[in-house]
Amino acid sequence: MSNTFGKLFTITCFGESHGPCVGVIVDGCPAGLPLAVADIQQEVDLRRAGFGPASTTRHEKDKVEVLSGVFNGCATGAPICLLIKNEDINDADYEKIKDLLRPGHADFTACVKYGGFNDARGGGMFSGRITAGYVMAGAVAKRILSTIGVETLAHTVEIGGIAAKPVSYEQVKQLALNDPLHCADAAASKEMQDAINSIKKFSDSLGGIIEGVAFNVPAGLGEPLFDTLDGDLAKALLAIPAVKGVEFGAGFDAARKRGSENNDPFILKGGKIVTSTNNAGGILGGISTGMPLVVRVVIKPTSSIALEQQTVDVQKMKPATLKITGRHDACIVPRAVPVVSAMMAVVLCDFAMQAGLIPGVIK
Amino acid sequence: MSNTFGKLFTITCFGESHGPCVGVIVDGCPAGLPLAVADIQQEVDLRRAGFGPASTTRHEKDKVEVLSGVFNGCATGAPICLLIKNEDINDADYEKIKDLLRPGHADFTACVKYGGFNDARGGGMFSGRITAGYVMAGAVAKRILSTIGVETLAHTVEIGGIAAKPVSYEQVKQLALNDPLHCADAAASKEMQDAINSIKKFSDSLGGIIEGVAFNVPAGLGEPLFDTLDGDLAKALLAIPAVKGVEFGAGFDAARKRGSENNDPFILKGGKIVTSTNNAGGILGGISTGMPLVVRVVIKPTSSIALEQQTVDVQKMKPATLKITGRHDACIVPRAVPVVSAMMAVVLCDFAMQAGLIPGVIK
Amino acid sequence: MSNTFGKLFTITCFGESHGPCVGVIVDGCPAGLPLAVADIQQEVDLRRAGFGPASTTRHEKDKVEVLSGVFNGCATGAPICLLIKNEDINDADYEKIKDLLRPGHADFTACVKYGGFNDARGGGMFSGRITAGYVMAGAVAKRILSTIGVETLAHTVEIGGIAAKPVSYEQVKQLALNDPLHCADAAASKEMQDAINSIKKFSDSLGGIIEGVAFNVPAGLGEPLFDTLDGDLAKALLAIPAVKGVEFGAGFDAARKRGSENNDPFILKGGKIVTSTNNAGGILGGISTGMPLVVRVVIKPTSSIALEQQTVDVQKMKPATLKITGRHDACIVPRAVPVVSAMMAVVLCDFAMQAGLIPGVIK
Amino acid sequence: MSNTFGKLFTITCFGESHGPCVGVIVDGCPAGLPLAVADIQQEVDLRRAGFGPASTTRHEKDKVEVLSGVFNGCATGAPICLLIKNEDINDADYEKIKDLLRPGHADFTACVKYGGFNDARGGGMFSGRITAGYVMAGAVAKRILSTIGVETLAHTVEIGGIAAKPVSYEQVKQLALNDPLHCADAAASKEMQDAINSIKKFSDSLGGIIEGVAFNVPAGLGEPLFDTLDGDLAKALLAIPAVKGVEFGAGFDAARKRGSENNDPFILKGGKIVTSTNNAGGILGGISTGMPLVVRVVIKPTSSIALEQQTVDVQKMKPATLKITGRHDACIVPRAVPVVSAMMAVVLCDFAMQAGLIPGVIK
Repeated sequence: MSNTFGKLFTITCFGESHGPCVGVIVDGCPAGLPLAVADIQQEVDLRRAGFGPASTTRHEKDKVEVLSGVFNGCATGAPICLLIKNEDINDADYEKIKDLLRPGHADFTACVKYGGFNDARGGGMFSGRITAGYVMAGAVAKRILSTIGVETLAHTVEIGGIAAKPVSYEQVKQLALNDPLHCADAAASKEMQDAINSIKKFSDSLGGIIEGVAFNVPAGLGEPLFDTLDGDLAKALLAIPAVKGVEFGAGFDAARKRGSENNDPFILKGGKIVTSTNNAGGILGGISTGMPLVVRVVIKPTSSIALEQQTVDVQKMKPATLKITGRHDACIVPRAVPVVSAMMAVVLCDFAMQAGLIPGVIK
Repeated sequence: MSNTFGKLFTITCFGESHGPCVGVIVDGCPAGLPLAVADIQQEVDLRRAGFGPASTTRHEKDKVEVLSGVFNGCATGAPICLLIKNEDINDADYEKIKDLLRPGHADFTACVKYGGFNDARGGGMFSGRITAGYVMAGAVAKRILSTIGVETLAHTVEIGGIAAKPVSYEQVKQLALNDPLHCADAAASKEMQDAINSIKKFSDSLGGIIEGVAFNVPAGLGEPLFDTLDGDLAKALLAIPAVKGVEFGAGFDAARKRGSENNDPFILKGGKIVTSTNNAGGILGGISTGMPLVVRVVIKPTSSIALEQQTVDVQKMKPATLKITGRHDACIVPRAVPVVSAMMAVVLCDFAMQAGLIPGVIK
Repeated sequence: MSNTFGKLFTITCFGESHGPCVGVIVDGCPAGLPLAVADIQQEVDLRRAGFGPASTTRHEKDKVEVLSGVFNGCATGAPICLLIKNEDINDADYEKIKDLLRPGHADFTACVKYGGFNDARGGGMFSGRITAGYVMAGAVAKRILSTIGVETLAHTVEIGGIAAKPVSYEQVKQLALNDPLHCADAAASKEMQDAINSIKKFSDSLGGIIEGVAFNVPAGLGEPLFDTLDGDLAKALLAIPAVKGVEFGAGFDAARKRGSENNDPFILKGGKIVTSTNNAGGILGGISTGMPLVVRVVIKPTSSIALEQQTVDVQKMKPATLKITGRHDACIVPRAVPVVSAMMAVVLCDFAMQAGLIPGVIK
Repeated sequence: MSNTFGKLFTITCFGESHGPCVGVIVDGCPAGLPLAVADIQQEVDLRRAGFGPASTTRHEKDKVEVLSGVFNGCATGAPICLLIKNEDINDADYEKIKDLLRPGHADFTACVKYGGFNDARGGGMFSGRITAGYVMAGAVAKRILSTIGVETLAHTVEIGGIAAKPVSYEQVKQLALNDPLHCADAAASKEMQDAINSIKKFSDSLGGIIEGVAFNVPAGLGEPLFDTLDGDLAKALLAIPAVKGVEFGAGFDAARKRGSENNDPFILKGGKIVTSTNNAGGILGGISTGMPLVVRVVIKPTSSIALEQQTVDVQKMKPATLKITGRHDACIVPRAVPVVSAMMAVVLCDFAMQAGLIPGVIK
């Protein structure tokens, strides 16, 4: 396992779905940053189950505890340990299927890699629950980024083949947060909700696409050749279970454009150099341009479905069938939305530090 | 700059388009690996200009030199410095446009980040020419991977909206290497070549999609949570200039599938657990499944075009227009093909080492 | 802060002297390793206060909790979070001197670096208490190393100018563990204890020298040029508060030897190449020779003393005097002994993994 | 091999004693830094053989070449490749002893680790010649540090048991550079030279101690717990062949002091907090105090001696005797002096960057 991410601002995750807790160590937070548990709790609550029609019936209080690195309401400069205890655990759901590899999950690869010693209950370390740690770290990163005016958000742009209409980022900010699917297009969201309710009846699941946007990113972030802004964002976002692809700006559509269409012309605006379009998604040569940073990730349909699936019993090494009857989200997309914006914040925070934009002490 | 990539098998790149050379230091190569310059030269030749209709007229001999780490025809265990001298340099092409930011290039972001001190001639460090270093490193990685039977290849699957028909991997191996566009579908390749020839007349450019495939990847490679196989592949591939997105297996199409369609059922085959489909692209939970590893990257259309473009003169801080008349590829896709397979090899080699599959000495 | 150490076997520490807990995340432990809390508790108990005459009167139960990474008595392959709650905290001791920089402590440097936001109670993150995390991580590392026969130990060789007589390593193993000062020379230990009891009466403190030895280290560990075995050991050992120097084998005495005296002749012994002496301390060229690895660290005298000291009041920016009346060790050396062997184990474990000697799964 | 050192300012070394060249890639140099080859050449010349009585008769011109990263006399922000070609190579010296392990050298450990495939001629990668790369990197680091007033120097304080009298740092600056042994005490230097001349006649060699000092280091550099200033300095200095120990400030003498003697009292001086003594060597809690940074390293006596030594023939696996008749330094200490100050500069430069003290662009 390599459970640490980042260079100057690093996060180290731990915990399992059905163990005592999930948590994260955040290192590199500037001393003096005001940090209230409530700030972190608020982000975690967005990720929690029970939000909208897509959700599992597993309910966790997900109460954030701060075990180190904060004193008198401010970051001390020392590593910050943030922890959530697991409470609503139901081992019985998993006990009966423990030898059956769940298609689409990491059961098989974890079993091979860890010789069957991995804690497979609920996916263990590979559970989506681990992303609660990402969100807690992201909450700290967002507080840091706010000191230089950088803001990250994410919203649902597609579920089950239903695409949201493009709207202005201003509208996204206003509308996405309060929509049950974090979708800024209310009509599309309604359609998506119907599709999710419908797929539930079939005991099946849906995937979708999330767009992340970062505003006020100063030009110059990113450390090519290899620690590019897009490269590290992709790596961070692919650490979210169920993400199978990442694209920036025009992304895969760029394959069908001419150079003259895809190139973003440079213009002057208020004495500043900007581009009149943003097919680059705010990144050129691995470095931020100062335009909004735009990234999209695809979330595969939830692997856990109650439909009968073909699999293998690893103890008997025999073919078997499997119905997964635990509590699962029919569509994980809305719950992944705050995770996407959290990981964007983590990456941007690290690069802002590498660029010397965040002082070691915030007063 | 962060010009080093990898954990146990690392590559460190240097050089600029119009400087004395481009090169790479490869560290972590097992001692005893037979390594002839010809092995590396062969891979570099595939990347060289002049291959097919898409190419620039800049012609480099690209002769590989080995400056360290090889003795008596074998790797010594010490870092291997591989270098190619730059020869066919034409500064005049760039001198006249040196203050004009080329849309789609890193001119602007590099200028901001490096305060205008960057060597902007031909894009300097951001030139596609730097990928000659990737290919040299990839050649070493491929030799190492061959000792455990792992093979990587890449092929063109789309150019200018023209998609190649899916064919078996066996056919890809046979057909793609010798096709001028590295496309395994001869009819599509012909169409693509026509499209490229046609776009040249418009002084414009085309993009496309490259698929990389790795065979015989043992199950268990990848170090989640953060050093996932897909995450590191994405990061490595996004270090190739012009790549704007990366997807694995079904990729973005997974957004439109049901869980029951997208999940790959586990079956037994010859006593081994495999999946009957491969929507996962050979990766689950950030770890290889043992199925073919399938990744696709989008290559944006070449940014350098001779059409007039709107831009800004950074010295005068005034709007300006620009025609790029240097020697450029109308479509960079075929030349990027060997770079994609090289970077896949670099990443797989590192993970195979982390998994303890590559001995420190090869006898 | 950079609170993570290691490449394949990594430890990430957190916690403060007077916060809720101190802890460590151990990542990279092979799955399947049997791991009982008792194994870890045993090492922690050696470090605990109250052992011998040198100790503070602060008494912590130091009960080890395992929050992740262990399931059914074995490591799962996932990160292992180990935690000790702080219990016997007495803020009052520190409240009255909070603006007075304690000479020899990190109060001043932490105050400069973290702008006064650091939790200065008891030294916060800079307290020797943080080394409880090192010892817990070391306990895991020792269990791993035991699977390949490698053993680390440490013992006191000098306190307050009183040097222990050199004895065979066999005797060190038998005698040092149970001596109250972890010294293998009972007579010298008695003298040292008298010296400590005497210095206490003067409200002063003593330092000393600890020797660490590792047995059965296979030849070939270490990754020069920069990740040398000695370099990483030195770095790890200097992370122990109060360590001010590190030497290997003959160490600083080598400055006074001739080459012919200092060179260790190679001889054959039982068909194996060994050296007849060990001035190299088991390391040549940054790589283990297979001989016992011998390192010595100097521990400065405890900085906290009850004698009046000259200092500065940082609030008033005025000269001040200070008497530190909290509970402190008059000599920290014996408590640092298990920390030295723990950090040696952590470093050796990482290099053994890099050399491919530790499988990913232990069965 | 792990041939890269540093986090934001990194150096990557390559080359062998008897291969085509030795070199270094310096990454992270701020763009705009004026950088003339002459600046680097000057430092390299200090390290070169032929300086003083202690030296080998191997004479290299050691002409520095800049292959990348510098344009129009300034750093571009891209990695800087610096290279020195090897010229005066005499393979014959080594051919006749190639199967005989040289005591004190890395021949044996390299042979084990690299299976005999390492280039053993002249020690290959383990030769002191590799430190020419350290010195070139250090020259760049010194230029960067000079922009914030930080200065590093090193001088010989002991050779063959002859210790230099302590003098003020001001005198060290004036006297050490031009002394043939880089010793600030002319009388001691004379004695040392006699000792070296005398030991040559015995075909034997001498070691010594070098002290490194850094001035104007701002308080607050260092990233504990693990990336401490002392820890990284020790690691960097132990990468110099022949260094067997490192100590800071009072170092090993602290073991014989009382706390009341060893603690440095804080006082106010010109409105700034300083310490009245500097037993801490400018480092407390792994962080710089602002006082002069003082480190000492022990250099073992040159391993290559012409006296007959006992060894093993690795081909025949039989005892053998060996006389090393190549060209070698009877005392490597003076040539290691510029290497010590170079590595100090490399480490300080990296920490200054991590602390945000060095801008990305220097104008």
